[in-house]
Amino acid sequence: MLLNKPVKGFLLDITGVLYNTSNNGGVAIEGSIEAVQRLYKESKVVFISNESSNTRQHLFDKLTKLGFQLNKNDIYTPIPVAIDIMKKNHLRPYLLVHKDCLDDFNDLDTTNPNCVLMGDAENDFTFKKMNEAFKILLNNKNSKLFTMGNGKFYQREDGPCLDVGAFGAALKYSTNCEHEVIGKPNESYFMAAVDKLKLKKEEVVMIGDDIVSDVGGAQKIGIRGLSVRTGKWRPEWENHPDVRPDFIGNNLKEIVDIILDYNHKC
Amino acid sequence: MLLNKPVKGFLLDITGVLYNTSNNGGVAIEGSIEAVQRLYKESKVVFISNESSNTRQHLFDKLTKLGFQLNKNDIYTPIPVAIDIMKKNHLRPYLLVHKDCLDDFNDLDTTNPNCVLMGDAENDFTFKKMNEAFKILLNNKNSKLFTMGNGKFYQREDGPCLDVGAFGAALKYSTNCEHEVIGKPNESYFMAAVDKLKLKKEEVVMIGDDIVSDVGGAQKIGIRGLSVRTGKWRPEWENHPDVRPDFIGNNLKEIVDIILDYNHKC
Repeated sequence: MLLNKPVKGFLLDITGVLYNTSNNGGVAIEGSIEAVQRLYKESKVVFISNESSNTRQHLFDKLTKLGFQLNKNDIYTPIPVAIDIMKKNHLRPYLLVHKDCLDDFNDLDTTNPNCVLMGDAENDFTFKKMNEAFKILLNNKNSKLFTMGNGKFYQREDGPCLDVGAFGAALKYSTNCEHEVIGKPNESYFMAAVDKLKLKKEEVVMIGDDIVSDVGGAQKIGIRGLSVRTGKWRPEWENHPDVRPDFIGNNLKEIVDIILDYNHKC
Repeated sequence: MLLNKPVKGFLLDITGVLYNTSNNGGVAIEGSIEAVQRLYKESKVVFISNESSNTRQHLFDKLTKLGFQLNKNDIYTPIPVAIDIMKKNHLRPYLLVHKDCLDDFNDLDTTNPNCVLMGDAENDFTFKKMNEAFKILLNNKNSKLFTMGNGKFYQREDGPCLDVGAFGAALKYSTNCEHEVIGKPNESYFMAAVDKLKLKKEEVVMIGDDIVSDVGGAQKIGIRGLSVRTGKWRPEWENHPDVRPDFIGNNLKEIVDIILDYNHKC
């Protein structure tokens, strides 16, 4: 199923595939540094993340510090896409985002907000801020909730951790607001990364640790979806009720080696 | 529709019907003090609240201070019911409840938690505590989320405010856990209050400001559900897609006067 069509390019999730987050910068997942090196040498690769608690620059710096060699321009994160959507639609967001990323949104008009833009705000998901966002959605007819990603949780070094999707679900429950996801599994987000590879979607694979956003999301639009047993991966997902990955590998290195070794033989 | 059967007793919601909450104790809603007085004189009344940020004693003290004259034993809140459920089922809850109510749970074993018990924790809905609750539900198979009430929001003097249901929705989204509501609209919770009145459910009315929990919940089990246009009431609920109250009055006093005046005429 995985190798019945050639694999000419790779879309890689970052958190849980390249590294696990922690309070002091994170830890590279065994073999991932070498896997990325091999991908740059022998194939094509872009990094497609729902990460919204780091700017692209932060993420690049962090990965470089951990030992990864990659090009900053190959990293896709939702923040620039979100800024673009806000500007094009004349939206003035209430920003419920991580304090480290606030500067990225400096150009946006946030006076008298008419929508909510939410990222993985971590400790900034306070009752006070959640209420401020709630009131905007309740009191402004047709105001919309935008979330950068919609994950249920992600893996930190200290264990699984609630992701932005949970806090989005809270606001939706209380307001019945409209909701748009900026990031995976949104089709246009995946396709921007595929286009960057100058390949067709049938020619690439998506490798991630989120069975719904990464694997299911990719499969839904015709991209092969592969799972790693790292990051937030849970044993019960081997028999997930909704998503069956095209392949499950122990980690990124194993999957990359299998595919590239096979390519060489053909 | 409202008066085609005699009304022999009243179930009253508290917050938004008797008073609106605020940071300094709350404000009585106009006419409610007199309405309660008249109900005690001319009919039967119990108070059925989903309030979990105050103990019954706090709530009684607060209402008394605001000028209400009522019996403490006529107040139903979810905390004693929750404690009873925990004990009967040998559950050791992770408590995500308001700091002012923590003492009420002193008797419970909370070591090595095997479920989550959540109330309206207000400022204690921190990212850290939400994550602790999340991990228990994710990592303990069959562990259940109990919420005291399941409201979307309630009215404070400073505006609408997220209720416990929102934070429950967040945990459900991320864990797919089982969920039990302790409080309205749970049938057994309503019926305990009806039984206290020594009446049949067809003989009582429920008056509340929550169209789903109070009005819809009562109607679902055969109790007439009446709405006040106070508290969290929203104009768009005059044509709510799911719930049509048996009567909508401007406030508690108006409804009580109409029913009791009618009773006298008959």
